Amino acid sequence: MSIPLIVQKYGGSSVANARRIQRVARRIVKARKAGCRLVVVVSALGDTTDDLIELAHKIAKEPNEREMDMLLSTGEQVSVALLAIAVDRLGVKAISFTGPQVGIITDKFHTKARILDINTERIQKALKEGYVVIVAGFQGKTDSEEITTLGRGGSDLTAVALAKALKARHCEIYTDVDGVFTADPRIVRDARKIERISYEEILELASLGAKVMHSRSVEVGKKFNVPIYVRNSMHNGEGTLITKETQKMEDITVSGVALTEDEAKVTIYQVPDRPGVAAKIFARLAKANINIDMIIQNKTQTKTTDISFTVFKNELARALHVVKKAARELQAQQVVCDENIAKVSVVGIGMRSHSGIAARMFAALARKKINIQMISTSEIKISCVIDGKRGKEAVRAIHREFKLGKNSVKKR
Amino acid sequence: MSIPLIVQKYGGSSVANARRIQRVARRIVKARKAGCRLVVVVSALGDTTDDLIELAHKIAKEPNEREMDMLLSTGEQVSVALLAIAVDRLGVKAISFTGPQVGIITDKFHTKARILDINTERIQKALKEGYVVIVAGFQGKTDSEEITTLGRGGSDLTAVALAKALKARHCEIYTDVDGVFTADPRIVRDARKIERISYEEILELASLGAKVMHSRSVEVGKKFNVPIYVRNSMHNGEGTLITKETQKMEDITVSGVALTEDEAKVTIYQVPDRPGVAAKIFARLAKANINIDMIIQNKTQTKTTDISFTVFKNELARALHVVKKAARELQAQQVVCDENIAKVSVVGIGMRSHSGIAARMFAALARKKINIQMISTSEIKISCVIDGKRGKEAVRAIHREFKLGKNSVKKR
Repeated sequence: MSIPLIVQKYGGSSVANARRIQRVARRIVKARKAGCRLVVVVSALGDTTDDLIELAHKIAKEPNEREMDMLLSTGEQVSVALLAIAVDRLGVKAISFTGPQVGIITDKFHTKARILDINTERIQKALKEGYVVIVAGFQGKTDSEEITTLGRGGSDLTAVALAKALKARHCEIYTDVDGVFTADPRIVRDARKIERISYEEILELASLGAKVMHSRSVEVGKKFNVPIYVRNSMHNGEGTLITKETQKMEDITVSGVALTEDEAKVTIYQVPDRPGVAAKIFARLAKANINIDMIIQNKTQTKTTDISFTVFKNELARALHVVKKAARELQAQQVVCDENIAKVSVVGIGMRSHSGIAARMFAALARKKINIQMISTSEIKISCVIDGKRGKEAVRAIHREFKLGKNSVKKR
Repeated sequence: MSIPLIVQKYGGSSVANARRIQRVARRIVKARKAGCRLVVVVSALGDTTDDLIELAHKIAKEPNEREMDMLLSTGEQVSVALLAIAVDRLGVKAISFTGPQVGIITDKFHTKARILDINTERIQKALKEGYVVIVAGFQGKTDSEEITTLGRGGSDLTAVALAKALKARHCEIYTDVDGVFTADPRIVRDARKIERISYEEILELASLGAKVMHSRSVEVGKKFNVPIYVRNSMHNGEGTLITKETQKMEDITVSGVALTEDEAKVTIYQVPDRPGVAAKIFARLAKANINIDMIIQNKTQTKTTDISFTVFKNELARALHVVKKAARELQAQQVVCDENIAKVSVVGIGMRSHSGIAARMFAALARKKINIQMISTSEIKISCVIDGKRGKEAVRAIHREFKLGKNSVKKR
């Protein structure tokens, strides 16, 4: 059959109430009448998931994870049923399924399960019968029929994985922004929507706080080469296409500038400089399930070294507890933390074949007299930690330096 | 294994919020520690089902019924997960299942499915592993894996059907009343809780508006002889045992007095008295899906007859529409309705072998100068339609006549 198959995914804010659900239904009907076969993945309505979590925590501080999956998976089930009702009412055949019903098979790690396999038989049958197939995101089942959820970004993951399994032409992620921008438009008024970006770049931008899509789903898209459009569910724009790196892209040196303000810096001063010291500290942090971002070691003395790292502010207290204990055991001199930091980063595939990007970034900061506290680089990213109060100013300066704005495009 | 197995069922008001869920959990833990194996059936939290229905009706006037089942079944799934979390927190192993997960197989009639079979394998396994098994009421699946709901009284039905399938010692229905009473305690202060009552009697009482349990589940209990306790989830009383008729019961002539105030009377005057007339009228009403309660035909003239029936007030308008059309076709003289009626009934197994019950009931009404408009009798029930304003007074008079009150027990 040559009728194109498209997977669409709508987030919780797109289906937060009856009116919005009806709007999404109209968009689906439009795409269907334009001649597409459609599989639609939906998240839970608005704040449903948070409300359910709150209710569970009123009952137990650490609720059983299997039961949490049982509980939370109801959110998406409500959404798919309501959306199917809304599409059906517009005269287009629609049928909803839970993740378990459509054979999304996961491992047994409740609340953060990974998709192992998708049995597409039931979806294929419904598509063949002419239905718009509406699937609950974020959920699956184990091979022993236990309901699981996929954790953060789970609905995006369902959509991209279904697009792969069904050999869809592409996947469309509908959200409340117009696409991926060269910088946060709330900070840089001149920020430009990016038409096309590579999986690698979006991965760096996502981990940097430009929260358009969760990394897990981009990784799956990258692995199986699924083209992903990020679009605004309220408008009709083309959005941003996330796809594999192309020749054309390489001409562009820097794709975007990102700002992260939710991290804190921890420094351990004068740690004895011998092998295995860093390993000991970060093994402890890993064991406590604390996510570390940047790590920098400065050897300032002859027999000791200073180690700094950044951590999300909401895990800072737990991180300090772990680190202080380790520092005592290692006879380090002192542990100091600073919550007043910001991390500004430039991302771009072209960067690895163009020298001088780092120098231009540092110069832009210097001109504004912004001091750099930490630097970290990867093949396609350069990040600097600076004073927390100056993050937005830094983003604007760097955005201008690399001529990323709408008004600069012609000059490039 | 000789450890007794008990099925408990908790209604929506018993699990309306976190505090009540915790109270139910404590009750479960107590029963478990007393040495019982437990299967617990739960309804949706408080008004959840109504809220979901309202949301669906905002989207479509007549929502697709398959999708309504998809939607509504989430309510019970939330309850079982939260209750399992609550029991687990008290240190007792608990595991929740949806109706489909435990193999409650139904027919394909969405929103009012009937249970065809229960595959108890998964429950048996969990019980063997020492779990309290918590099952979502009101739901099942078809043999093609479609989610269905059982309609009104569905959770009670799940509980009684599970008790039968698992060969439980008995079934306990927890509600917000202490049991079944000889009359509504809000009307008759002296009303007495009945310790033991037959399936037949509770069926008559249920259909008369003493809404303790839905008829469908009592019928299943009767068919498979499952002893059912109706108890208050807030207290520790024994409640009322619903069981098969015993020798002892037959001594008791009248079990209780019930009042129904939500019916209206419709009379069709001077219908030509020829065969098939009543059939025509009531076939039309049945086709319009209108429930009729009492039907009485009085032949007053030589060539015509008067037909009266009662109908629920919320269906009166539709009933009148149907009946007036039929009356015109049959050349009946007139259709009159009266919403100001009450139906008072006495129910009792003993009645069928004791004469004089009807006479005593009519005499009690006569002493109060309450006029009887209609009379209808079955083997174990006598109902009278009277002036709507005098229903409560009639119940009190009859309750006293048959010495049903707490203070009368000794004299009987």
